[in-house]
Parts: sequence; structure tokens; C-alpha cells
Amino acid sequence: MSIVVVGSVGLDSVKTPFGAVKKVLGGSASYFSYAAGLFSQVNLIATVGDDFPKKYIKLFNQKNIMLDGLSQAPGKTFSWSGQYGWDMADPRTISTELGVFADFRPKLPIQYEKSKYIFLANIDPELQKSILKQVKRKKSKIIGCDTMDFWIKNKKKELLDLLKDIDIFFINESEARQLTQEPNLLKAARAILKFGPKKIFIKRGEHGVLLVSGKHLFTAPAYLMESVVDPTGAGDTFAGGVMGYLAMTKSKTIDTLRKAAIYGTIMATFAVEDFSLGSLEKVTSAKVKKRIKKFKKLVLF
Amino acid sequence: MSIVVVGSVGLDSVKTPFGAVKKVLGGSASYFSYAAGLFSQVNLIATVGDDFPKKYIKLFNQKNIMLDGLSQAPGKTFSWSGQYGWDMADPRTISTELGVFADFRPKLPIQYEKSKYIFLANIDPELQKSILKQVKRKKSKIIGCDTMDFWIKNKKKELLDLLKDIDIFFINESEARQLTQEPNLLKAARAILKFGPKKIFIKRGEHGVLLVSGKHLFTAPAYLMESVVDPTGAGDTFAGGVMGYLAMTKSKTIDTLRKAAIYGTIMATFAVEDFSLGSLEKVTSAKVKKRIKKFKKLVLF
Repeated sequence: MSIVVVGSVGLDSVKTPFGAVKKVLGGSASYFSYAAGLFSQVNLIATVGDDFPKKYIKLFNQKNIMLDGLSQAPGKTFSWSGQYGWDMADPRTISTELGVFADFRPKLPIQYEKSKYIFLANIDPELQKSILKQVKRKKSKIIGCDTMDFWIKNKKKELLDLLKDIDIFFINESEARQLTQEPNLLKAARAILKFGPKKIFIKRGEHGVLLVSGKHLFTAPAYLMESVVDPTGAGDTFAGGVMGYLAMTKSKTIDTLRKAAIYGTIMATFAVEDFSLGSLEKVTSAKVKKRIKKFKKLVLF
Repeated sequence: MSIVVVGSVGLDSVKTPFGAVKKVLGGSASYFSYAAGLFSQVNLIATVGDDFPKKYIKLFNQKNIMLDGLSQAPGKTFSWSGQYGWDMADPRTISTELGVFADFRPKLPIQYEKSKYIFLANIDPELQKSILKQVKRKKSKIIGCDTMDFWIKNKKKELLDLLKDIDIFFINESEARQLTQEPNLLKAARAILKFGPKKIFIKRGEHGVLLVSGKHLFTAPAYLMESVVDPTGAGDTFAGGVMGYLAMTKSKTIDTLRKAAIYGTIMATFAVEDFSLGSLEKVTSAKVKKRIKKFKKLVLF
């Protein structure tokens, strides 16, 4: 089953205690697509400027990523610049330049209208909504969605409106608390379920993940890593692993969702062990399976 | 197998967003003993003042806790007063009154000298060391030890000296980083192993636990709780569950250690769901087994 994803494709400049990169491939939809593409075909909807390096287009083409929905507009590609401290927690944003993204009006190619799996990567909730409106709504469709603190703060009303139509919502631990004003995470998750989503994955970074779906609860620790080089895109990659696995298995049972959380966890480890999509580019199914096996050993009791 | 524990027995005054208590039973050795006592006989070494309520002595007596090593001295019982914020993270200490604890010179009753399991609960590393000197050292003995940020800051040399003789070291996540000046947790754990301990449990509070032993790694998430009333003593209770389970099973294989981590995790949930030892007092083996079963469901994939 193929997955439609709408989100940002951009050029990141990142500094961490372990190095720095400039104008490298980034963006929520890029990370998502690389991870999901390992499991299912990905139909990418995004926009880039005329400065977007051709080598990245080529890289997308080499993966399982269809580019009928990727528009190239005159102007600059969306770019983000940020810096991480030693704790590798939330980065400090140095600059955000919207470029062509400012005029992005995402358009669903007609051949994608029937797609069963849709993922609204982290962008303005109004843009997320506009894609949702173009999708032929059916009960059988699975709509996933991510967001960030900026939208919770500045477009909360639009976000809450969007959440009514979401099946699987991905959100950070601190953002879950921010959105609900509830310090207890389990209570925060339950409060978010009341906004509409049927299932929530709460991403806890180096502390793992929590899945809440009705009365079902699942929690998994993160994979222990001796070296985290750049955490950028970990959450988008997690979502890519989850949605990709769901689309591949065509299942949405609670057992599949638990396994999907583990696949998401493992995909995220590849995102953070190098800058940009450096390590994700080289990921193979065999590498993922090997790491899943190691993870099972790590958590067995 | 019985366990000898040396540590503090005190009177706590605690304020959390959910209530407040004054001069209730607390102290590292109290929490440890209640938890370990569910699995094995506990031989408590501590001191209290002449103001120590008789009802608490009676409560210890009702449990599996031997009091031959509990001295009562003229003066006030050790007391701690602290306050937790909404995040229920590290409390703000309002006051610490050492009372009779200032002159505490722990003495191992002769009948405990051969004990195979020893736990040095969180007190001054020099006092911990003094008990260790009184124990007849044999390779077969299992020496567990806990500490806190205060001793890492003020008695690091003494602590590092003590660690040479420790089998199982219990430490908080932030303290592990503090002790080693290493932000990566796995690297911090490996650095601590070089100080001497054969195994380390890194306590991560609401984020679970990490066990590192040579090349063996194990990580478990915390049990999700909808309501945490008072986190005081969670770490001591965790250690009590671990050491108690090890003493009960008389095993120290890596599989037993993993299971012990889960028992510690579950015991800690009883510590935090009420003030003081309110919930631990009422814990039964059946309640623990039930919660372990629920935990397995929570983490299965």
C-alpha cells in the first residue's frame, strides 16, 4: 500500500557538539519519506525552490519515493538553521527562512486521491487540512498527523479542528503537556484522545515511546545509543517507520501498532546517528531487522 | 536469604501539589526494608531518637524486618522536609535536621556478620564503608549500594573509594552524569563500571531503568501511573525490590537481574502512590504479581 505524505522538504544547517553541516537535505517530509519508503511506496507532496540541489532529487528517485507531487518554484528552498547543546534536547533555532514554502498550496495529484494511507507531516495545520480536504474520505483510510510546539502556540484552534479527522496522532511528550495543560502524561494522552484522534504515539526522545488507544496502553524504551550525532528529524523518522510498517502489513490491530512503534523506534536510531539523512540513506531491511533483534534482547525479561 | 541494610530511618514532612504530611515515617532504609521485606528477611541497621513514634516500631515488627541493629539514642530523630512541584521531579529541600543521626556509628550485630546480602542505603559514604569493614568479606557476598548528588558533590573521594568494593550500584540518571561528567548515559554507565561496581542500575524515574553489567544491557520503561502522590523513597524502594528479589531467588544470573529490575520497578509504584509508606504498608505478594502481569501487557510487542 502506498502512503501520501505532505510536509516540508528543506535545507538544514545544523550544529551539534559533534560537528556542523550546512544546507543539507532536511524537512519533515524528507525524513518521513526515507523511513516509510523502506516499507511502502511513498507519494511525496512538497515544494522546493530552484536552488534545490539536483543530487537530492536523484536520491529521492533512487528510493521508493514518487515525486509527482513535488513542485519546484522560483525562489529559495525552505531552510532551517539550529544548534544543539550537550544534552541533545530541543535545539535552539538560529533562523528559519520560509522561501517558496511561504506560498505553498499543496495539491494532491489526481492519481493519489484514492490512497489509503495519508500522513500530514509537521507543517501549518491549515496546510495539513487543505490536503485532507482533497483526499476522498472513506472510513477505511488511515490519516496520520504530526505537529510541533509552534503550531500548538500559534494555531491551536486550527490544530484542534484538524485533530477531529485524525486517526493516528504523533506528538512529543512536552507538546502533549503543552496542548492539554496536564502534567501527568497518561492523563494528557487521554485528554488528546478526546480531541478526536483514535490513537496517539507520544514520542519521548531518548526515553522511548508511549502508545495510547482507547483502553490499550503500550510503552517501549528507546534503543540505547552510545553516540547521537544529530537528533534532527528523529520524530519524523519515527512516524515514517510506524506508517510505513502499517501500510506494508495492511493491518491496524493493536499488536501491529505495538510492532509499528518498535519499527519507528529503530528507524529513528538511524536518523540520529549521522547528520541529515546520511545514515538513513544507507539503511537496508537487513540492517533494520538486525537492530530490531538487538532491541528485543535489550528489553526482554 | 536475609539482607542487612544500613541507612536512615527518619521523619519526613512532604508537600506535593496533591497534599502534605508532617513527621511521617521516611528514610532510605525504611523504604528499602519495606520493599525488600516482601521477598526476604531484612536486618535493619539505623538509629532513631527518643521521639520516634512507637507505632512505627510496631509497623516494622509486623513486617519481615529485624530490629536488633536499630538503636534508639537520646535526642531527635533525623528529619527531612521537602516540597515537590507539578513535575514531581527532584524536590526542593526545605530543611534537614540530622538529630541523633549526627552521631550515628553503625554497628553490625554479631549475628549479621555472615549475611550474604548487604545493602548500603543512601547515607554518608564513610558510614557505608564502616559497615562494610565489619562484614566478613567473602566473594560470594552481594554488596549493593545507593548514593545521592550531595555525596557526589561533597564526598566524591570517599564514594569512589567505596565503589571499589561494590557489586551492585544504584544511581539516578542525573547523578550518573554528575559523577562521570559524561552526558551520554551509556558511556556514563561504562565509566562507572570502571570505578569498581560489577553491575549498575541507573534509575530514570518516570522513564524507567537501565541495567548495565559488563557487556549486558537491559532497559525497561516505568510502569505508567495516572496518579503519583509523592515520589519520596521511590529509588530506595526500587533497590529494595531488586535486592529482595535477588536474595529470595539466591541467583545472580543476568536473567534474574532483569526480573529483579522489573520487581524493583513495580515495588516503586507502590511507594509513589501514597505519602510516606502508606501504600507499601498494604502491599501483598498477590498485589505485586497482579501489577507485574499488567506491566508485561504494557510492554509486550
